Amino acid sequence: MSGRLSVVGTGPAGSAWLSPETAELIEQATDLVGYGPYIQRVAGAGHVCHSSDNREELQRAAFALDLAAQGKHVAVVSGGDPGIFAMAAAVCECMADAVDDRWSSVQLGIYPGISALQAAAARVGAPLGHDFCVMSLSDVLKPWELICRRVALAAEADFAMAFYNPRSSHRPWQLGEVLALLAQTLAPDTPVVFARAVGRDDERIHFTCLAEADPELVDMSTLVLIGNSRSRYFDHGDRRWMYSPRDYPQTLSGDGTASV
Amino acid sequence: MSGRLSVVGTGPAGSAWLSPETAELIEQATDLVGYGPYIQRVAGAGHVCHSSDNREELQRAAFALDLAAQGKHVAVVSGGDPGIFAMAAAVCECMADAVDDRWSSVQLGIYPGISALQAAAARVGAPLGHDFCVMSLSDVLKPWELICRRVALAAEADFAMAFYNPRSSHRPWQLGEVLALLAQTLAPDTPVVFARAVGRDDERIHFTCLAEADPELVDMSTLVLIGNSRSRYFDHGDRRWMYSPRDYPQTLSGDGTASV
Repeated sequence: MSGRLSVVGTGPAGSAWLSPETAELIEQATDLVGYGPYIQRVAGAGHVCHSSDNREELQRAAFALDLAAQGKHVAVVSGGDPGIFAMAAAVCECMADAVDDRWSSVQLGIYPGISALQAAAARVGAPLGHDFCVMSLSDVLKPWELICRRVALAAEADFAMAFYNPRSSHRPWQLGEVLALLAQTLAPDTPVVFARAVGRDDERIHFTCLAEADPELVDMSTLVLIGNSRSRYFDHGDRRWMYSPRDYPQTLSGDGTASV
Repeated sequence: MSGRLSVVGTGPAGSAWLSPETAELIEQATDLVGYGPYIQRVAGAGHVCHSSDNREELQRAAFALDLAAQGKHVAVVSGGDPGIFAMAAAVCECMADAVDDRWSSVQLGIYPGISALQAAAARVGAPLGHDFCVMSLSDVLKPWELICRRVALAAEADFAMAFYNPRSSHRPWQLGEVLALLAQTLAPDTPVVFARAVGRDDERIHFTCLAEADPELVDMSTLVLIGNSRSRYFDHGDRRWMYSPRDYPQTLSGDGTASV
């Protein structure tokens, strides 16, 4: 019996950021699989809900595929965009590494959603209006030395940056080390924004700069945005905004920094 | 008289990717400002439409701000996400560089949308499931040497990459040079995907690898995705998929490449 697996994302909060495509897929689904809080945002009376911890993503993906292979229409639900540090990669890993053909009949679809990254950027202004990179600072699935290496190279490239998973109770010191590493290359007044829980009741936006950024203000619900050498603040309507200009000076000095 | 400026994005195609928030803002708007094809996707009978060429973004932003300062509710409409290589940065630049307070009463809001990047990634699988960077390859607003420098550093960092504006009739050779630059660092079999017009009738997905990637297949409607050293393909349901695993080997050799 052939079922269906739809990998979707709810957007970072509320229903205003849920795409019509995903809303329809969720309505059609028989079973929802995912982290409890994400499922609760979208579950209807007719859904069979399979909540799980926000870890063990491979097991969750395999479980969802098994359900789909039984003929269900399963929606694997992430917050944000399923393709950005969420369930799409776990589902693909499962399928690519399958040891038999038990999932071969499953109709697979992956669907985009608005990411936390984009909600944070929009709230703040336009920090990603120029070239940028996106990293997870969690060293659970990759070595810490790789994270440091990437951060240093990203600073050298003068990318604006967005950091997911910047800090948790199990990883309290990493963000401070990353900020210190950035300070070796970037100017002390480089704009830094801590955008916490954007779109939720406990949203909190904190504008600061590299020299003054305090990791203690950051938790797992925070998206950290780092400007490039041209990013700047402006004030409008009783609040602050941050953006990265679209253009970049046409001449570079020998070390690659902008000379205006 | 105080008006309102809402900077929104329609998503890359159709109405299935248009967020409810943006749909509502567009419905409330009196005036739509933007590139003609984007406006046509969402304009209603009651809208005053101000179409413009897809260049001259600063003039367009200033025009929209002037309209809002006259008391209109203006929606500045981008395709995709307005924050990613689109109008949000131009609006912020305008406001930050304003020489007087003529726009000071305008109520500004910037709202996220699904980007072409995400639609392409979802169609393909999960190429952005690990750290990645996003660049425009257009050298209209930044020096070509900066683009090359960033591409080389991104390859050294082993980021998955997404390239906007990869090629046009005015810039026919740049993508070939970028691919050659990548080939100095990345393996010949690094997955490369050309995702053209995702979600539109003329959508075309082309899976290839770095050694075989042909720039002639790419135009301005194409999003180019480059895998990292761990990205791979798999086949499922009569088609190909590409993903970047969530994890990365725990040991690195001296030059930063993975040793498994």
